[in-house]
Amino acid sequence: MRMVAATVAYDGTDFYGYQGQRTFRTVQGDFENALEKIFKEKVICHGSGRTDTGVHAYGQVIAFKVPNDRMTVQNVKDALNSVLPNDIYIRELKEVSLKFNPRFMAKKRIYHYYIYTGKQPNIFMRNRVWWFPYDLDIEKMREAAKHFEGEKDFSSFKTGNDERNPIREIKRVRIIRTSKDMILIRVEGTSFLKRMVRNIVGSLAKVGTNTWEPQRIKEIIEAKDRSKAPASAPPEGLYFYRVMF
Amino acid sequence: MRMVAATVAYDGTDFYGYQGQRTFRTVQGDFENALEKIFKEKVICHGSGRTDTGVHAYGQVIAFKVPNDRMTVQNVKDALNSVLPNDIYIRELKEVSLKFNPRFMAKKRIYHYYIYTGKQPNIFMRNRVWWFPYDLDIEKMREAAKHFEGEKDFSSFKTGNDERNPIREIKRVRIIRTSKDMILIRVEGTSFLKRMVRNIVGSLAKVGTNTWEPQRIKEIIEAKDRSKAPASAPPEGLYFYRVMF
Repeated sequence: MRMVAATVAYDGTDFYGYQGQRTFRTVQGDFENALEKIFKEKVICHGSGRTDTGVHAYGQVIAFKVPNDRMTVQNVKDALNSVLPNDIYIRELKEVSLKFNPRFMAKKRIYHYYIYTGKQPNIFMRNRVWWFPYDLDIEKMREAAKHFEGEKDFSSFKTGNDERNPIREIKRVRIIRTSKDMILIRVEGTSFLKRMVRNIVGSLAKVGTNTWEPQRIKEIIEAKDRSKAPASAPPEGLYFYRVMF
Repeated sequence: MRMVAATVAYDGTDFYGYQGQRTFRTVQGDFENALEKIFKEKVICHGSGRTDTGVHAYGQVIAFKVPNDRMTVQNVKDALNSVLPNDIYIRELKEVSLKFNPRFMAKKRIYHYYIYTGKQPNIFMRNRVWWFPYDLDIEKMREAAKHFEGEKDFSSFKTGNDERNPIREIKRVRIIRTSKDMILIRVEGTSFLKRMVRNIVGSLAKVGTNTWEPQRIKEIIEAKDRSKAPASAPPEGLYFYRVMF
């Protein structure tokens, strides 16, 4: 019996999120279907984080036990990739300790969020980026982003049904113009509340359009009241980029 | 009565090509449905070229008559974009002569073809580029591409059911490395036979992998025999990029 960890990319467009097994199409459901095809038995898998409907992953980590000793790790990777649907791909697969837990042992998670500010939509990127056709003041957004860094109570930036401890640590928020009309927001943290990254991006967009002053972010965090924060940014711009253990 | 020309982008993934009206989903069918919704009558439209199933367009030109005099050209553009599905978008719309014919009056057509040579697939580009994970010798491909330029009999590079005059003029074939793992093949010509660009790309790939010498292209053109040419490159890498009148 070996435990392995897969680094998985998926296009979230046609999934009802990561978690769940039957009824709706989910990444976990499709992944477990692939495992069952290869190993001829039910194998449960565990992800590093739950992505919502429409949210993508470049580096989700999914761990599972390999029920036989015959296949090499490379064989398992190739076999799974050959039966997984074409919107999920295992980039890497390696053996890990039997005690490995990708959710509780994650030390850092990195999310990327892309905002496309072109005046006309780019249909080829319609499910890959948030089309937000406004000029954004990057310097103001960077100033605002500083307020998110540190260990804080993020009650204002979660969704109502997340009842976990609202204190989270954000290590860094970077705002990068990757091309004339594309902005990448990179958020690094230990763990995140539900919709937290999309709520952060939604409020940074308010600052970028000069609707809000950067200082407003500090006030909203201190209010610990989610009714103060703006609408979430949509799922299509968000990528679960990397997990570090 | 005014004639207008629309410059249209579409994601060809979910279309059975440009041409056709009922039964299967086509770009022309969806475009005419949108016209009927706006103008409350059937309006026929004419494209500059027929793209096959899965082939994209960035600058297809579609002409139609506007049956009323009330709407400005901007109104027509906005109204159509609001009812068109999200994989078709009118980038520009302008009034043209009543005699305008986008197919017969086109002086130059430009196609772009993207080859992604990364060793692993990029699932986010799976319907946008040809994933061909081999090292390509760009210099050899450029040497081969020269043989396509000029007015020639392209019988070896069409599909069997295209019975039109096989003599076509290719003005230029450029091969550009746009990033480490991405190659763009840009083909400019007056008009093209069915599958001609994809057949050209398929044979350039044979040269790029050193399976064929560049000189082989010249021999295949001179053979005027389509059984000599290799398999077509797949549709997902091809974009009908621009038409000049």
